[in-house]
Amino acid sequence: MGFSFEILRRSADGARRGRLSTPHGAVETPAFFFCGTGGAVKGISVEQLSGCGTQGVLANTYHLHLRPGEEIVASLGGLHAMMGWSGPLFTDSGGFQIFSLGHGGVAQEIKCRRTANGSKTLLRIGEDGALFRSYVDGSLHTLTPESSIRIQKLLGADVILPLDECTPYHVNRDYTARSMERSHRWELRSLAEFQKNSDGTQALYGIVQGGVHEDLRKISCDFVVGNNFFGQAIGGSLGSDREEMEQVVAMVGRFLHPSRPTHLLGIGGVRDIFHGVRQGVDSFDCVHPTRMARHGGALLPGSLSDGTGHINLHSGRFARDREPIDRSCDCYACRTASRAYLHHLLRSRETLGGQFVTIHNVRFMNRLMEQIREAIETNSLERLEIAYR
Amino acid sequence: MGFSFEILRRSADGARRGRLSTPHGAVETPAFFFCGTGGAVKGISVEQLSGCGTQGVLANTYHLHLRPGEEIVASLGGLHAMMGWSGPLFTDSGGFQIFSLGHGGVAQEIKCRRTANGSKTLLRIGEDGALFRSYVDGSLHTLTPESSIRIQKLLGADVILPLDECTPYHVNRDYTARSMERSHRWELRSLAEFQKNSDGTQALYGIVQGGVHEDLRKISCDFVVGNNFFGQAIGGSLGSDREEMEQVVAMVGRFLHPSRPTHLLGIGGVRDIFHGVRQGVDSFDCVHPTRMARHGGALLPGSLSDGTGHINLHSGRFARDREPIDRSCDCYACRTASRAYLHHLLRSRETLGGQFVTIHNVRFMNRLMEQIREAIETNSLERLEIAYR
Repeated sequence: MGFSFEILRRSADGARRGRLSTPHGAVETPAFFFCGTGGAVKGISVEQLSGCGTQGVLANTYHLHLRPGEEIVASLGGLHAMMGWSGPLFTDSGGFQIFSLGHGGVAQEIKCRRTANGSKTLLRIGEDGALFRSYVDGSLHTLTPESSIRIQKLLGADVILPLDECTPYHVNRDYTARSMERSHRWELRSLAEFQKNSDGTQALYGIVQGGVHEDLRKISCDFVVGNNFFGQAIGGSLGSDREEMEQVVAMVGRFLHPSRPTHLLGIGGVRDIFHGVRQGVDSFDCVHPTRMARHGGALLPGSLSDGTGHINLHSGRFARDREPIDRSCDCYACRTASRAYLHHLLRSRETLGGQFVTIHNVRFMNRLMEQIREAIETNSLERLEIAYR
Repeated sequence: MGFSFEILRRSADGARRGRLSTPHGAVETPAFFFCGTGGAVKGISVEQLSGCGTQGVLANTYHLHLRPGEEIVASLGGLHAMMGWSGPLFTDSGGFQIFSLGHGGVAQEIKCRRTANGSKTLLRIGEDGALFRSYVDGSLHTLTPESSIRIQKLLGADVILPLDECTPYHVNRDYTARSMERSHRWELRSLAEFQKNSDGTQALYGIVQGGVHEDLRKISCDFVVGNNFFGQAIGGSLGSDREEMEQVVAMVGRFLHPSRPTHLLGIGGVRDIFHGVRQGVDSFDCVHPTRMARHGGALLPGSLSDGTGHINLHSGRFARDREPIDRSCDCYACRTASRAYLHHLLRSRETLGGQFVTIHNVRFMNRLMEQIREAIETNSLERLEIAYR
């Protein structure tokens, strides 16, 4: 019933096939976690989520703290009971949303929710923590490393994360270095708070910062590896484009603890997942599959989607298309609905349209991860990646 | 595989327990049909709908004609195949929406959809049919008795309805009488069009008009009974309040064909259903349960809801309520979610909130009808009605 991480197999290209055990069951890795935002994976029930073979959900402390509040979640038996989700569950620290909103957008989409008017809600950041304004009702809130851990203890997810500053790409190296040092001090405070009265039902991952700078990433990895975190997450800016991101993930992969579970925060593109897996990443989370679904974007291997990785079912070209999204997919949407029907539902603003496409995208990601795990076992990751191109 | 209607039992108070057989299966009556609007019961999948014990759906020809259009529905294999719904299906004629929109609201909520700006879309009504403007794109459309039947043949529902003018309450007796006579002529044209190349896969109900006037209702019932309609539907204005509606339904019940299946259009309140059942009504449809659900209204017996028949989960008084909507309900929502969680989802504008409440309301209506059927068998309808008060 406790936590463990077992590496079952390492492939020649750096990928690893593992098993992350939690009090709410095991996650076969590499795995993808769906964004559970404020206690719901947008648009679908946990029954549908399970039906798609989902292993885990990552919910946002920021949203849950503001609404309904961690006290109410705790009074309902914790986040698992409130949502009716009995499987593994992560929460983030709340930092990502505060800092993303606070730093004001710059082509940076906010995870799970955009600001209504683009106004900055981060009011002050200091050694103690961050002062910000609620997007729900404008009230003032302070988030500190200690309060984030206390909130996450009340939420009761299996894996929790320490508060860090998510430094954006456009700040300079000096700011990134100072911010990283502060995040390290925050992580130590988080660890101390976490260890108080810890009953073993939760595990804390450390977060690696350092932006795109190799020397900083090395310092940050050494910090995380040198402290008693159960797992390690790759955070902070991963650069401005895919090439830079791949460089950052690759360098961090080399410096990380070789036997701790490794999570890459906020990344969910198919190509990025293949790359991450080769750098030893064990789990991923991203709003991409579920957010795209709500806008009518159905995930498909690149070859079936003009290389974009999805088709936009809003497009008039699907108005008479009798095919399902993907003939080879076994999801409820593909067994039930034609592209023309989905197009019609989306055009008619029926929420059932988003529900169907979300089911497909969730199943797509879970199938992708199933196939990746199998490919690691059979040393055929490259062949699989080509099939997804 | 054809159509038949069998009355299995008549109770002393006028209620009847029957079985309506269609090419897509049998409906145990009295039964409730959920509004399938433009090819979707709003917010839930047909899998969820079936899981709640649903027997039938009534979709709107008006919406489907405007979007995606009957040709596309037919090319997808008809409405059953498009929706993935393999059970009994009704379509209305399109008249209700045209005339409701056309007569301009007057405290009359439009079925399944309100107009964006309250503007009138009915441009002309004459002997041939009605000219109206599409709410989707402003284009002009003519609906005639013949075209309504042709559209409904392409849609392919099991039970279809003839075009009639839905006379509003505020018009005088003279208008109602002339409108009724025209509707009768339209119904004869509909019957003629229906019988052309009829392959027995669809059945046509006649519609009784006549407003609140007993003599007109008698004339209209005689007309419908005297023609070769498979079933009979009660349409038109049912008055301005419950008392008047009960009078109208009761008088019509006396004049209708004693062995044809009888449908009461657009009525779905619990008390109204009990009353209708006693007048010999076999089936009902209404947007009420699903529309109310989207606005957070969960159906409950009156005694559990301050007599209103529902609780509004948006209300702050449910913010900490750990109970399910109804402890005695076996639906997925009541097995999974607390009122506090549903309140949170609705407040957060998560579509999952509406999905949950819709599942509950659908199950509530289906349980109600199951219990009504059982009560007819055991002559205990009155006791059941008291339990729902």
